Amino acid sequence: MNARHALTVTTTLHEIHAALGGDLLGDPARVIHRIAALGQADEQSISFVANPRYRAQLETTAAGCVIVAPALAEAAAQRGAAIVTPDPYHYYARLTQWWAARLRSGQHAGVHASAVIGEGVRLGADVTVGPLAVIEAGADIGAGAVIGAHCVVGPGVVIGARTRLAPHVTLMHGTTIGASGLLHAGVVIGADGFGFAPHQGRWDKIEQLGGVRIGDHVEIGANTCIDRGALGDTVIGDGVKLDNLIQVGHNVHIGEHSAMAGCVGIAGSAKIGRGCTVGGGAIVLGHLELADGVHISAASVVMRSINRPGQYSGVFPIDDNASWEKNAATLRQLHTLRDRLRSLEKKIDTP
Amino acid sequence: MNARHALTVTTTLHEIHAALGGDLLGDPARVIHRIAALGQADEQSISFVANPRYRAQLETTAAGCVIVAPALAEAAAQRGAAIVTPDPYHYYARLTQWWAARLRSGQHAGVHASAVIGEGVRLGADVTVGPLAVIEAGADIGAGAVIGAHCVVGPGVVIGARTRLAPHVTLMHGTTIGASGLLHAGVVIGADGFGFAPHQGRWDKIEQLGGVRIGDHVEIGANTCIDRGALGDTVIGDGVKLDNLIQVGHNVHIGEHSAMAGCVGIAGSAKIGRGCTVGGGAIVLGHLELADGVHISAASVVMRSINRPGQYSGVFPIDDNASWEKNAATLRQLHTLRDRLRSLEKKIDTP
Amino acid sequence: MNARHALTVTTTLHEIHAALGGDLLGDPARVIHRIAALGQADEQSISFVANPRYRAQLETTAAGCVIVAPALAEAAAQRGAAIVTPDPYHYYARLTQWWAARLRSGQHAGVHASAVIGEGVRLGADVTVGPLAVIEAGADIGAGAVIGAHCVVGPGVVIGARTRLAPHVTLMHGTTIGASGLLHAGVVIGADGFGFAPHQGRWDKIEQLGGVRIGDHVEIGANTCIDRGALGDTVIGDGVKLDNLIQVGHNVHIGEHSAMAGCVGIAGSAKIGRGCTVGGGAIVLGHLELADGVHISAASVVMRSINRPGQYSGVFPIDDNASWEKNAATLRQLHTLRDRLRSLEKKIDTP
Repeated sequence: MNARHALTVTTTLHEIHAALGGDLLGDPARVIHRIAALGQADEQSISFVANPRYRAQLETTAAGCVIVAPALAEAAAQRGAAIVTPDPYHYYARLTQWWAARLRSGQHAGVHASAVIGEGVRLGADVTVGPLAVIEAGADIGAGAVIGAHCVVGPGVVIGARTRLAPHVTLMHGTTIGASGLLHAGVVIGADGFGFAPHQGRWDKIEQLGGVRIGDHVEIGANTCIDRGALGDTVIGDGVKLDNLIQVGHNVHIGEHSAMAGCVGIAGSAKIGRGCTVGGGAIVLGHLELADGVHISAASVVMRSINRPGQYSGVFPIDDNASWEKNAATLRQLHTLRDRLRSLEKKIDTP
Repeated sequence: MNARHALTVTTTLHEIHAALGGDLLGDPARVIHRIAALGQADEQSISFVANPRYRAQLETTAAGCVIVAPALAEAAAQRGAAIVTPDPYHYYARLTQWWAARLRSGQHAGVHASAVIGEGVRLGADVTVGPLAVIEAGADIGAGAVIGAHCVVGPGVVIGARTRLAPHVTLMHGTTIGASGLLHAGVVIGADGFGFAPHQGRWDKIEQLGGVRIGDHVEIGANTCIDRGALGDTVIGDGVKLDNLIQVGHNVHIGEHSAMAGCVGIAGSAKIGRGCTVGGGAIVLGHLELADGVHISAASVVMRSINRPGQYSGVFPIDDNASWEKNAATLRQLHTLRDRLRSLEKKIDTP
Repeated sequence: MNARHALTVTTTLHEIHAALGGDLLGDPARVIHRIAALGQADEQSISFVANPRYRAQLETTAAGCVIVAPALAEAAAQRGAAIVTPDPYHYYARLTQWWAARLRSGQHAGVHASAVIGEGVRLGADVTVGPLAVIEAGADIGAGAVIGAHCVVGPGVVIGARTRLAPHVTLMHGTTIGASGLLHAGVVIGADGFGFAPHQGRWDKIEQLGGVRIGDHVEIGANTCIDRGALGDTVIGDGVKLDNLIQVGHNVHIGEHSAMAGCVGIAGSAKIGRGCTVGGGAIVLGHLELADGVHISAASVVMRSINRPGQYSGVFPIDDNASWEKNAATLRQLHTLRDRLRSLEKKIDTP
């Protein structure tokens, strides 16, 4: 049985071209069932060349149609149908969106009988609520939103139009989410921030009384957590994309259109600018600021604010274990080595 | 719409002072609706100065009342109402607790009709069980405990008085939790530890037959996992605070009042002392011991036992990418550089 | 109350020996209630010595029976009953499996009345479905499988025989899992991969149209996430073992019998060979390949493909904070130090 079975669509080049544009070379009546990479494509597949270095694959692919940039139009047309467009990767992105919309069409299913809807909940037009979801009192769900099976939407939570929640999402009270968002399974928004006052050898809890405000077009990956603010709110800007298993601490601000890969941790009160990227597994310490356009490499640790755009890195290079052991041991004497070098320099320069 | 709407309370300085003490300067009848940071406060807000370096904000804040230490009493009183107390941060912590207790008062809701309660379950007085929670046979829930919507409490699990579980918490069989705990959404306690015996190129499962014992006043962050022991138990001491997305392996022991920030990983059989702290993203390898009062900086990796209290760190410093690349490349030759330095030293010293 | 209470079994050495083999020295009628480590064992416990360095504990343990290698048979028999077998650790693993099977026997419970089963779902013989689980249309669950409370099994998902899902597992459409698997609580399979095309300062979503194919005998730890492929599938080979809180990106391939400890992140399109191990907290960047038999140390970052088997490491050594600060500061000048060393070498060698 094929896992992709449910992901096939029956369409034609004519339909694709009518919906998404570009220059269509070849037979508009050609039937397309799949989007596929060049190497996996068959004659019922549409594929794309986003990068000229894959040009060689053009000659060997069995794809029924290939999306290409103008420079490759001739080469592509020699082997079969083609769609020519200035930015094939963007065309491919739009094609996947059109494709997914077709797969989802007709899935609107209303409110499942097993869902538990609290008092005073406002459901917009065409809202879908999955089996056994819980929507607590006073929540406000925008038109066309989808609340997955087993989600828990806390009291008074606000969800914008067309925002979709996969199963098992938890939104605590004090959370607002904008329109056209997508939250994957296991996401937790609005758990308490990590706030304690040390007192006589114990930790006295600082109750977290702020909320979480999330903009429009935000995507949040599976099992990612965004904590509520201590007093003010944690704020996620429009267009932010967060991958899976990310931790966002209390009162963090993430600027518009920033993106973070999996396993990132952003400690409390950090302010991340607009258009930043943070690579997988990176850590940003608390109360720091990153300017707009700062890019942090995977697994790097940001220990000071960064006020200029650019790429920043800090990772111990991997090596065979024996080499690493020798270099790591020497690293623990590095400051001493520097002093020995200085001392040598003095001797040489003042003989 | 304001995410904090649900977090406002109507009270007076008189009520606050009566509940929490301190010296009240100013009008006890003043109405307070919010706790706010100095910069966000309005005249219906109470704020605090925990650190003398924020003294300048005292002059500009619009807060209706400010909590201050005796040294700032005069300055605070000149601008409006004040509460004077030796430790303003601790007073603030207690104020948030009193505030949150008011917000939660009257939320006791009994057992929701949709919850699934197994045979022989013992529910103490005033237990709340949320919608669609599952409590399996023989579980024992202490008085005043709160089991959130969609929680799954395994067979025979013991939960102490007043402990609260947010939605979507999973407690597997063999778990015991003390009193006054707080577990955030998505927490998993008692999943199998990662135990396999290598055998003929495969991994033979070692079934995990221990449990998890968690003390009183323990807080566990969203989506954090604590595995059951292989044979004996995994043990979390009283007053331990764990942030979100932390992994605690089988048979780990965490001493009383230790705290760990988000994304930490503690490998199996590690023993963490009392009063330790572990910064976000740090990793502690298996079978190691950390003495009481050991503090591990964020993103550091503990590869050997540490038997003396103190602060320990190990992080590659972040830099602009070009500088990092040069230094990282050189680091892979560091041992060789040391040898070259030694060789030079010999030449100089024995000319 | 004892967390392990539920994990005791009443058996005899005769029963254990009949089931698992080996040479039994001592009274077959001896009653055994527990498996325990040497130091925690009592006379109703069976214990084991997997490593000769624990030989000394043989003399002091109170265990009613000890599993030992032939070299320790005599020493073990002098103190009480023993089972002698060439690989005691493997015998112990098999004993835990036999023990756990007894604990689970009779737990088959059919389909709970509160579960929500969609149209066209196929349930094999003896399938257990827990309370409030949701199985969507067209899913296919193999004989003897166990679907835990609150699981969500998406439309068309295929689950092999005897595979068990703990509570709160989410399997999205397009997921297939083989036989005899074990997925712990909070696992999310088939969330969207992290795919976006940058376009005019925003991120254009690339809808993720692939699936996830998981082999037989795969174990996946709590809250671990495996994303669906962008076009093709994400593939997890037979016998793979993944610990908790691991992120596996879209189109990753993990070879058979590889194992990864907690908090690991594998970025998109990485190809991990057979029989590899990845230590806790390690990160593997996208599109890299690891050969069969590559072992990555905990918290290391793989930034290039590795085509030879072996152990690889890259971690900044931990130190007291003051020493670390000095060495880390010097590390930022390391390339300059190398140049200074070269310059000195030239001066010395060409005086």
